[in-house]
Amino acid sequence: MKHNSYFDGKVQSLALAEKEGPTTIGVIEPGAFTFSTSSEERMTLISGSMKVRLPGSEWKLFVAGEGFVVASGASFDVEAKEDVAYICRYR
Amino acid sequence: MKHNSYFDGKVQSLALAEKEGPTTIGVIEPGAFTFSTSSEERMTLISGSMKVRLPGSEWKLFVAGEGFVVASGASFDVEAKEDVAYICRYR
Repeated sequence: MKHNSYFDGKVQSLALAEKEGPTTIGVIEPGAFTFSTSSEERMTLISGSMKVRLPGSEWKLFVAGEGFVVASGASFDVEAKEDVAYICRYR
Repeated sequence: MKHNSYFDGKVQSLALAEKEGPTTIGVIEPGAFTFSTSSEERMTLISGSMKVRLPGSEWKLFVAGEGFVVASGASFDVEAKEDVAYICRYR
């Protein structure tokens, strides 16, 4: 199983296979991070909440159960004030 | 962030803090595993499905969105035929 660690370990994820394609689940610790995409990403929050700034958009708060889609080749910013768990589907 | 690896890496988890207490998210690869609890565990499947045998119960299939509670000091068996993602709350 692939274990990924980013930003000095403040963001970590585990890879799994879903029938529809590759997926990760992960945890984001408190902080501000910028992620870049190399494929379309469909992210859903499982626990916690964080602010997200999608390309061309204003900051918006997302809570557990909510999610967003980011196109391939883009970048987006997040700001977490608590631990956030997420599932991210690469499609 | 604490990263845990069990069963030769076939089960891995990441720890996070929720307001209500400690939590992990994790992935279970295909296989049969027996887990022991040292506190009450409330487990919910996020992705995939697996059979679970709780103490004193028969095997039962759980799918994403479903979950179960295991008392402290118990053990339970799982059998996964696909990757399973879960969230486990220790309360």
